[in-house]
Amino acid sequence: MTEETTRSPEFVQSLERGLAVIRAFDAEHPQLTLSDVARMTGLTRAAARRFLLTLVELGYVHTDGRLFSLRPRILQLGYAYLSSLSLPEVAQPHMEALVAQVHESCSVSVLDGPEVVYVARVPTKRIMTVGISVGTRFPAYATSMGRVLLAAQPAEWLDDYLARADLRPLTRRTVTDPGKLRSALKKIATQGYAIVDQELEEGLRSLAAPIRGDNDSVIAAVNVSAHASRGSSETIRKELLPPLLATAGRIEEDLRAGLNR
Amino acid sequence: MTEETTRSPEFVQSLERGLAVIRAFDAEHPQLTLSDVARMTGLTRAAARRFLLTLVELGYVHTDGRLFSLRPRILQLGYAYLSSLSLPEVAQPHMEALVAQVHESCSVSVLDGPEVVYVARVPTKRIMTVGISVGTRFPAYATSMGRVLLAAQPAEWLDDYLARADLRPLTRRTVTDPGKLRSALKKIATQGYAIVDQELEEGLRSLAAPIRGDNDSVIAAVNVSAHASRGSSETIRKELLPPLLATAGRIEEDLRAGLNR
Repeated sequence: MTEETTRSPEFVQSLERGLAVIRAFDAEHPQLTLSDVARMTGLTRAAARRFLLTLVELGYVHTDGRLFSLRPRILQLGYAYLSSLSLPEVAQPHMEALVAQVHESCSVSVLDGPEVVYVARVPTKRIMTVGISVGTRFPAYATSMGRVLLAAQPAEWLDDYLARADLRPLTRRTVTDPGKLRSALKKIATQGYAIVDQELEEGLRSLAAPIRGDNDSVIAAVNVSAHASRGSSETIRKELLPPLLATAGRIEEDLRAGLNR
Repeated sequence: MTEETTRSPEFVQSLERGLAVIRAFDAEHPQLTLSDVARMTGLTRAAARRFLLTLVELGYVHTDGRLFSLRPRILQLGYAYLSSLSLPEVAQPHMEALVAQVHESCSVSVLDGPEVVYVARVPTKRIMTVGISVGTRFPAYATSMGRVLLAAQPAEWLDDYLARADLRPLTRRTVTDPGKLRSALKKIATQGYAIVDQELEEGLRSLAAPIRGDNDSVIAAVNVSAHASRGSSETIRKELLPPLLATAGRIEEDLRAGLNR
């Protein structure tokens, strides 16, 4: 466990530990031994064994006796969240229309603490595809959607975020100064969109706009990202901002229409 | 809890119950009260409250004090599985090429007990989009990918499946007789593909082929689905089977090439 916080007396530690065991598996560690899981979660071997065997019995984990791996049933858990959101379903056709029009990939994400999480994505047809899918997470400060979402947070939340956030340089252009980031967010809140120029990855520019729900609150962000070869930030703003804002507007309209569904 | 099975003495019941609380949320129930969760999971109100508050503390559930809903962090759990699979990433560009060629949607799924679970999907650009996404589940017996996957199971597994499966008619064409289903699966195993003609949904025909991994074992299925207006089953077989088999072959080739990654 990496976090040390005060837990309520009713906190179910077994649930926390079981979920940590699930999260130990990822692209770099699709198969783990009992010892791996114990080491990665900080559990004793005996405890790790109990959780793994429980997950095997529940059909979430497969084992050959030595190696453990996740089974597709695990998707039920994330799917519960995705299917409970009407946003991806509502956004999808509008995202597809935008991609067909501008020939760049389009994504929708929401804020989860200091990170953005992709909840919908329509890649453009290119020979080079980027390995981003629903569930992908990026630090909010270095992405256009993240900045749009940060810019919409209440002042106290943002103060706290800027005081604690680990603003690491991901490229040589990443804004890592909290004061500069705060100014950028103010500008974004006023202008209603964000451009990020190669701060997450060299050669990648991205343009994002907010998606507003009930009460005009920002519930998500939608973006288009373009390779630097498409043109300067200014070219991207000129060419892609109007269709992006139109797309955000159509998604908002459909969300409003479906509010009583 | 719907299942009554013998649990090992080391079984962690709190983990099972916590996961059941997560699964209580879905498209029809994105927001639940404490009483809803207690009723849907069979837990006491006191127990449901402990699990919900634990999930709130861990950042997986949001509450306004009365209503509970899942938060995007939940995606981490399913994402652990998806990112641990190389299959969706490897399959994606080949699926996109197939969709561009045949103008029908393409999906890849794996078997999870009696159901298929979608792990990758490339929809075609149509005005009508079907609400299928990664994580969607269908009963295997009524789908083309399910039949391809069932046909590849060991004999004992299949006997057990056919003896217990709840083969309900989903349309008036669904094969619900275990003997007829067994014959269909035998044919599929021999011919190397499955066609399902409006057995899952009226107006929907689908064609699936196996994806073989290491040791020639079937690890997944890939399909294309077409509206009935595209033509008869025979037309679909003639037009779509050659490109589908070619796509399956390319995915297998890339999987083999990546075996040592």
